[in-house]
Amino acid sequence: MKIRIITAVLLVACVSTARAATDEPIQPIQLVKEINLAKADLGKQLFFDGRLSRSGILSCATCHNLAQAGVDNLQYSVGDRWKLDDINTPTVYNSSLNFVQFWDGRASDLQAQAGGPIGNPVEMGGFTHVIVTDVLKTMPGYVTEFNEVYGTNDISFDEVTGAIAEFEKTLKTPNGRFDHWLRGDKNAIDAQELAGYQLFKSIGCSACHNGEGVGGNSFQKLGVFAPYKTNNPAEGRYDVTKKDKDRMTFKVPMLRNVALTYPYFHDGAARTLHDAVETMGRIQLGRKLTPKENGEIVAFLKTLTGEFPSIVLPQLPAGSDATPLSQPFAGTPEAHHFQ
Amino acid sequence: MKIRIITAVLLVACVSTARAATDEPIQPIQLVKEINLAKADLGKQLFFDGRLSRSGILSCATCHNLAQAGVDNLQYSVGDRWKLDDINTPTVYNSSLNFVQFWDGRASDLQAQAGGPIGNPVEMGGFTHVIVTDVLKTMPGYVTEFNEVYGTNDISFDEVTGAIAEFEKTLKTPNGRFDHWLRGDKNAIDAQELAGYQLFKSIGCSACHNGEGVGGNSFQKLGVFAPYKTNNPAEGRYDVTKKDKDRMTFKVPMLRNVALTYPYFHDGAARTLHDAVETMGRIQLGRKLTPKENGEIVAFLKTLTGEFPSIVLPQLPAGSDATPLSQPFAGTPEAHHFQ
Repeated sequence: MKIRIITAVLLVACVSTARAATDEPIQPIQLVKEINLAKADLGKQLFFDGRLSRSGILSCATCHNLAQAGVDNLQYSVGDRWKLDDINTPTVYNSSLNFVQFWDGRASDLQAQAGGPIGNPVEMGGFTHVIVTDVLKTMPGYVTEFNEVYGTNDISFDEVTGAIAEFEKTLKTPNGRFDHWLRGDKNAIDAQELAGYQLFKSIGCSACHNGEGVGGNSFQKLGVFAPYKTNNPAEGRYDVTKKDKDRMTFKVPMLRNVALTYPYFHDGAARTLHDAVETMGRIQLGRKLTPKENGEIVAFLKTLTGEFPSIVLPQLPAGSDATPLSQPFAGTPEAHHFQ
Repeated sequence: MKIRIITAVLLVACVSTARAATDEPIQPIQLVKEINLAKADLGKQLFFDGRLSRSGILSCATCHNLAQAGVDNLQYSVGDRWKLDDINTPTVYNSSLNFVQFWDGRASDLQAQAGGPIGNPVEMGGFTHVIVTDVLKTMPGYVTEFNEVYGTNDISFDEVTGAIAEFEKTLKTPNGRFDHWLRGDKNAIDAQELAGYQLFKSIGCSACHNGEGVGGNSFQKLGVFAPYKTNNPAEGRYDVTKKDKDRMTFKVPMLRNVALTYPYFHDGAARTLHDAVETMGRIQLGRKLTPKENGEIVAFLKTLTGEFPSIVLPQLPAGSDATPLSQPFAGTPEAHHFQ
């Protein structure tokens, strides 16, 4: 009997905590579950491997720098032959929480996304699927690992992107201060941060920035009350659908770790959180925030920084004598310089 | 009495093992000792931090890729604005064993070396010492760590390079198969590998490639029996001393992990170990090696691959609002492209 009572009390406590979180538009980041570890480990190696790029040096990790909150903190990333990428690089941390991938949502999931930069001439240099897999097949370490993970003696591009996606699923940042608050630790955030969160809800930010990712779960028009001024030619969802109603409609970015992922917006035009909050208030909510309000929201946003997973750098499979030497300068004026 | 006898036997065993190693021209890699861990940890962050470069994306780890045996496996590295570096990048692993740094020995130690690529316009873009430290001072995390490590409230460039050097001292690769053999495990290498080692000694390779690093402890003329043909303008030690006797005299590269650090020589002209061994035999020793001999030496060289340290990727200190946004495209035609 006594045991039953204790159980009941515990159940109430759990439900109470759960309710605290459920009542809010934002939910704590869930821990990583149901991962194929061997596949994720293979994917980690591929994520860090520049030999998937034309030059041999640009990997997923170059722009999605895992030491720097999953971004490069640049307005636009640097691509193959120092080309200018045409849109700000979003973080790869928590990217599994996005309902679609890319700013315009043109990829339905992480695996579909992973193939994009590899095949993009501006980004990793445009290796075809066949070239990528042919290169990997010259490395005995990869041949063995693909065999262990997929049970085949071949290496397919789908297997490459599938492994990268599996690794990316492990890149979650739970247990930020705001998540502790959501779970019931009322001291996890201070009065200013709490005021910022109340404001974030009351003025309407949380209408779009909600859920586990604090965004990443809908398309929204950028520039509701006033147009978003930019020289960047991207038109968001319109570039995919070619429907007029989709012009300047973008996937709402997640705000997890947003304090670390500057600069902001698809054109990287906002350097600071202060700037970004000011712009959002003005063009999305038709509201000129006071310095105090802006400061409170910025303070709240900083509580969304989570715990980054510990990532042991992989030792990449060695090339064999058959592995082609990457030629980063092929097709450049430097190609014939003392070579 | 019994205890004394056992002690004596153990001592003999130790001496015997030690002698086995001492009699050989190559010694096992010693484990890392006497490291200032806080300083090395700070140095690890700096080693991985692209914000020490003009573009914000090139770090020590870009060319000295710790996931790829400490090199980029390119003939010449890619520098700032995709510039062509003018000499093959040596590995950073075991670099503390080099008696001087760089191919031409122009840096006396790791700390002096570390400043080179940072200040080189072709490599990391030529940030001055003042710019580097000014950028770091805008990041509260670094300010705290430099204070903890050095006890000052300022950040000096010497402190930056000192920390990087301390981290680099941890990058040793002990316990390769050949080191196990040196320590007395006769089954650690097979008959072909042993034959290769005997040949390596008998024909004279070990005259220069010896010691803990299997090289890295002397300058030698490249091209003793025949000139080394290359379009690379480097003249090695001569570029430092301007003495005719030093023309084409280079620091002998270490052969630790050499199977992984292709391509070879200061001009990266030899793609495979087979090519490198053939050239060395011909121009350094005046000897045309048979395919069998070449194969044996290559087999031996592969036993020099060691155990790489487990490196947890650092989470770099975040920039503050005062941290300047890196401008990789400044001064390029792309600078004004939709910006």
